[in-house]
Amino acid sequence: MSRLGQSAGDLPTFDDVVAAHDRLLGRVLRTPVMNFPRFDARVGRRVLFKCENLQHVGAFKLRGATNALLQLESKTKVVATHSSGNHGAALARAARELGWRCVVVAPRDASAVKLQSIRTEGAELVSCEPGLVAREAALAEVVARTGAAVVHPFDDAQVIAGQGTAALELLSEYPDIDVLTAPVGGGGLLSGTAIAGKSMAPSCRVIGVEPEMADDAARSFHGGIRVGVQGSPATIADGLRGSIGVRPFAIFRSQVDDVLTVSERAIVHAMRIALEDLRLLIEPSSAVPLAALIEGRLGQAGETIGVIVSGGNVDLSVCPFLAGRASLNA
Amino acid sequence: MSRLGQSAGDLPTFDDVVAAHDRLLGRVLRTPVMNFPRFDARVGRRVLFKCENLQHVGAFKLRGATNALLQLESKTKVVATHSSGNHGAALARAARELGWRCVVVAPRDASAVKLQSIRTEGAELVSCEPGLVAREAALAEVVARTGAAVVHPFDDAQVIAGQGTAALELLSEYPDIDVLTAPVGGGGLLSGTAIAGKSMAPSCRVIGVEPEMADDAARSFHGGIRVGVQGSPATIADGLRGSIGVRPFAIFRSQVDDVLTVSERAIVHAMRIALEDLRLLIEPSSAVPLAALIEGRLGQAGETIGVIVSGGNVDLSVCPFLAGRASLNA
Repeated sequence: MSRLGQSAGDLPTFDDVVAAHDRLLGRVLRTPVMNFPRFDARVGRRVLFKCENLQHVGAFKLRGATNALLQLESKTKVVATHSSGNHGAALARAARELGWRCVVVAPRDASAVKLQSIRTEGAELVSCEPGLVAREAALAEVVARTGAAVVHPFDDAQVIAGQGTAALELLSEYPDIDVLTAPVGGGGLLSGTAIAGKSMAPSCRVIGVEPEMADDAARSFHGGIRVGVQGSPATIADGLRGSIGVRPFAIFRSQVDDVLTVSERAIVHAMRIALEDLRLLIEPSSAVPLAALIEGRLGQAGETIGVIVSGGNVDLSVCPFLAGRASLNA
Repeated sequence: MSRLGQSAGDLPTFDDVVAAHDRLLGRVLRTPVMNFPRFDARVGRRVLFKCENLQHVGAFKLRGATNALLQLESKTKVVATHSSGNHGAALARAARELGWRCVVVAPRDASAVKLQSIRTEGAELVSCEPGLVAREAALAEVVARTGAAVVHPFDDAQVIAGQGTAALELLSEYPDIDVLTAPVGGGGLLSGTAIAGKSMAPSCRVIGVEPEMADDAARSFHGGIRVGVQGSPATIADGLRGSIGVRPFAIFRSQVDDVLTVSERAIVHAMRIALEDLRLLIEPSSAVPLAALIEGRLGQAGETIGVIVSGGNVDLSVCPFLAGRASLNA
């Protein structure tokens, strides 16, 4: 683990989340909230799934990217970012909708289906080595070359405010949630979720979950000092390989109740349970909170748990139980 | 193929579908209608998915079963049926909600996950040999033993009217549909869909799709004489192994525009495409219309196609590409 800087800069508030929600009306899907009796019976809790896997580009990331881009001013209208996939596709889509050019720096080890999605949404793709240092260096080159404005995937007040709109929608439909949970990579989703949760349902606990193999947020949260992952951990949860950001860490310290970790085996098992019980294909990152639920470690029996299902972009070849023969005769 | 009788008895009308819709309010989910740009781009059509895979018990069957049961009168309050799975689970759930006892006759070769669902919903399960003759004999024994009222899985006017409410909801949200499609087993879903479609959007074409291996409805439709399948065809689309019913056949002749067939290979391919493009796990029966769409045989380029996604109950072990290793270390 490397020790990171602590300057949080501007932090978003609940007013920013509400403003983001108004700004995003008609630009992002109001995704359905679903409940599955079979899964409830399995985990002994009432679980409400906010299905951002069914969002445009298959991920909540469209919320933050669109909210940030709508507030950028630029004469050249070029925007750039680095992303392991979903944020890149989201920014590419937001840029296309708003008439901007978009350049996305993505690590070589990003999910193939996500890279394809970035291209499909019309962005220019620049490949780099895995790890934050290489990503930031490549992005700096892009900015020098194009004069692009940058929308960071998570360490940005307006991105965080945008991500919080998923929890805002969930709580506006179901105010009686005991525990709100989301996966933690850079921490943007859980930060926004915490801001919405603590304002709309003050007694609600907000709990993040991340892979054991990329447990920087748990270590940072429990140790009180922000630490990062070294390089790019090989967790199957490809969206959660980065380190927690400065702003997310500051928000975690004041508004998040706990950060748990789960094993790789538990993540794959949870993906399979999601297919069986929910009939939804969720990406490994989204299975991370489900894994903690299935292990009985999230909330108490009988409580109502709100889960932000972060995305549904899966390379079918990556997951063991999806990697069987592609057809009957192959 | 065996030649079957032709007496249609009472046939449901659009008024019955509207009455069913009112009757079912609050008893079935108003399932979401979804659209997936990636799939639209793949097939060159705008495709609207009415997601009955996300219905209670994971199938449209709850609509017809509940509508029929709500109109039964009985002192003993026992209901029975034969079913390859989804209708059984649906009737079991409807019975439980309304305080009836339920007995379901199911063939040995029914999907294990569907049999489990029938038990979970609280019904008594009676196993029989595959094929319509064995199913009807076993059901007759149950009726003799218990005095149960019978709700047929598809050859029942109120069941058909109930199934039509999915298309009614779809068309009330999207009136400009050019082609409505659904899979065909006994024909209850497509019959109800046709009744709703032809009344609400008279210029809309209604097209059924079934597996080549169980092509009795296509042969019956094109030949003008109702023929049945022999035994239980081994198509992976376990919900479509039965023969078209008398009432459905009569409705097909007056209100359905075409019945297509697709190969087993195309069905499995379509399930995989659904996971990739829609992020939804759909059962093999539901993949049947998608297979025809992917082959470019349903509707014209640029048209809007409404698909009733019939269900999401899949044995993960049945589908080749889902049958990989269950965990990372297995």
